[in-house]
Amino acid sequence: MSFGTSEYRTRIQKTKERMASEGIEVLLITDPANMNYLSGYDGWSFYVHQMLVIIIDEDQPIWIGRGQDANGAKVTTWLYHENIIPYPDDYVQSDTKHPMDFVADILKQIGQDKRSIGVEMENYYFTAKCYEHLKKGLPNAKLKDATLLVNWVRVIKSDEEIEYMKRAARIAEKAMETGIKSIEAGVRECDVAAKIFYTQVSGTEKFGGDYPAIVPLLPSGEKTSTPHLTWTDERYKAGDTVILELAGCYKRYHSPLARTVNIGTPTDKVKALSDVVIEGLNACLDAVKPGVLCEEIEEVWRKTIEKSGIIKDSRLGYSMGLNYPPDWGEHTASIRKGDKTILEPNMTFHLIPGIWLDDYGFEASESFRVTENGCEVFAKFPRQLFIKDGLLTN
Amino acid sequence: MSFGTSEYRTRIQKTKERMASEGIEVLLITDPANMNYLSGYDGWSFYVHQMLVIIIDEDQPIWIGRGQDANGAKVTTWLYHENIIPYPDDYVQSDTKHPMDFVADILKQIGQDKRSIGVEMENYYFTAKCYEHLKKGLPNAKLKDATLLVNWVRVIKSDEEIEYMKRAARIAEKAMETGIKSIEAGVRECDVAAKIFYTQVSGTEKFGGDYPAIVPLLPSGEKTSTPHLTWTDERYKAGDTVILELAGCYKRYHSPLARTVNIGTPTDKVKALSDVVIEGLNACLDAVKPGVLCEEIEEVWRKTIEKSGIIKDSRLGYSMGLNYPPDWGEHTASIRKGDKTILEPNMTFHLIPGIWLDDYGFEASESFRVTENGCEVFAKFPRQLFIKDGLLTN
Repeated sequence: MSFGTSEYRTRIQKTKERMASEGIEVLLITDPANMNYLSGYDGWSFYVHQMLVIIIDEDQPIWIGRGQDANGAKVTTWLYHENIIPYPDDYVQSDTKHPMDFVADILKQIGQDKRSIGVEMENYYFTAKCYEHLKKGLPNAKLKDATLLVNWVRVIKSDEEIEYMKRAARIAEKAMETGIKSIEAGVRECDVAAKIFYTQVSGTEKFGGDYPAIVPLLPSGEKTSTPHLTWTDERYKAGDTVILELAGCYKRYHSPLARTVNIGTPTDKVKALSDVVIEGLNACLDAVKPGVLCEEIEEVWRKTIEKSGIIKDSRLGYSMGLNYPPDWGEHTASIRKGDKTILEPNMTFHLIPGIWLDDYGFEASESFRVTENGCEVFAKFPRQLFIKDGLLTN
Repeated sequence: MSFGTSEYRTRIQKTKERMASEGIEVLLITDPANMNYLSGYDGWSFYVHQMLVIIIDEDQPIWIGRGQDANGAKVTTWLYHENIIPYPDDYVQSDTKHPMDFVADILKQIGQDKRSIGVEMENYYFTAKCYEHLKKGLPNAKLKDATLLVNWVRVIKSDEEIEYMKRAARIAEKAMETGIKSIEAGVRECDVAAKIFYTQVSGTEKFGGDYPAIVPLLPSGEKTSTPHLTWTDERYKAGDTVILELAGCYKRYHSPLARTVNIGTPTDKVKALSDVVIEGLNACLDAVKPGVLCEEIEEVWRKTIEKSGIIKDSRLGYSMGLNYPPDWGEHTASIRKGDKTILEPNMTFHLIPGIWLDDYGFEASESFRVTENGCEVFAKFPRQLFIKDGLLTN
């Protein structure tokens, strides 16, 4: 397990307090990050239905999942083995049986089917069909939306979680250095991606890396006009701008990092854009401290870059930490207009003020924690446009 | 794009035929593999809501997604740019606005909101909340479950798709060879995983690799009692059994492959289990040909291994090919009791008769296509228990 049992118990206690305040007696958790956060469960089994059941007046959670994954739950969680309940394999991707029917049956058997039951309505791993089957199977329950209930417990990290994110940052620095060093005219994009993956997963001599929740994003040339393209097996050309967004990951905790490289002298407009973004990024980091609202950081950004004429209409960043594919973000606080979240010590964000225009773009980002009086940036990596061909770089 | 426009048009036509037979006039596709299959769209943007809209009497699909991903849709799809409709960023992970409200508004604007509308109820990327918002936003529509409608179109592959899966198999062979060669007592699990990732993504000299939909699964020692654990930074010990399940991936098409390695002489029970699984696997492959039902392959397995006393209660395999995380399986045909799918040429399966017992397990698998009179196994890789320390291996 990644943490001692007492840390898991503290998390359960905080979750139960939120449940109580929202009138939820039984919480069905399908978000793999929330399952891991409360039980330690860690395996690539989230492609089938599984859940953790938190009952407000019971000591331990119940894990329900596919039969062949039950031993995985025994190995990775702090739960009593009798709280690990496997469902038979004919429930898997079947057109006649659904795992949520099994869940409803279990809740009936243990007398929890007439209570107020929270479900994560907006989670990748709780489909529309899951909800329909639960509604049908639990006619006497009061189903309530508990989206993000546990995610909000996750927002403030413990010191041990911060330590894990710092280890992830050591990996992110190595992976970014590897990426920037490998990008040259004539090199295939896939070979750069492969070296980044190698570095992410091997980690450092002292500790290994885990798989990040998002693969390296590596748009190049005109494709830098959009952030979420991966790589091809084409070769870089002289003049190409290349965006690298990646993360280090340690025991499912992330430190994302983005930088931009130009192969040869950048065009004036790429250079100008990089100056704007880096100035704005620096100003935002300077503004972070407890008591500030997320929307106030966005306002600092907007006022700092106003003179450039550039307008960024997408959010500047988001809370992150523990996660599984497809996203390392926590889906809670965002650094954007209208977000009234008040910054507190040990909140952790990825601040990524990328700008994507018609045929080019630029990204530079930092992951940080809020400290007692400011912020601590996790990765130590030069905050600049990197230019490849002997001009600068590290 | 991975295919010519005519292949995409053929796929759209087949999809419309299924829509017609199920009384669906408008199909909202949220499965990223189905989106890719019909439009070419390829980007790691599925962590926010996006969809492809197929209208039965319109020539082209409509792509709806996040603003910053619209340029990605322009780069990777065959769609007219006016059919690419971005939503503003304040719909992203917001507690006041939902992207499905935007989708409902668009359907109203184009006069499609009073029709029979299919949604993929059982898909990771169509949450319970998506459905609730669509129901509210489209009061005059008749919403129908269209789960797997496009997945079933995908079941029979074109020759070009088969060629992509063969390329994926070349990568899988290299990745498996790398993994088996790297596993030694004293080596960290993460370093083996890192080398596998490197090989998967760099691919071959002729073509690069794409990211598989599942990371390498590498349970070792007692953890081989369960299939879906990944890796740690601990070191392998002499005597450890190690399961490797991985895939090669080319342009989102997969060829999965599993093998098991023993560091030093295996115990008698591991050796015996490997003999059972490999005999059963061989018998199943021999039984594959057009006209046979999926459940008949399972029956061959059961009768072949009956004498061993081992019972496998989980499915033996599944249709697969094009996909995105978290699963490379297509969620259509399964090789198991009760599955009446009739095998046809160019159906493609991953046959993975893994056995996981109380404290050990064994996996060996093959990906294959059904041919005119039998089956063609994609990867050329010895089908055996690998024993590391000069005894055999390749």
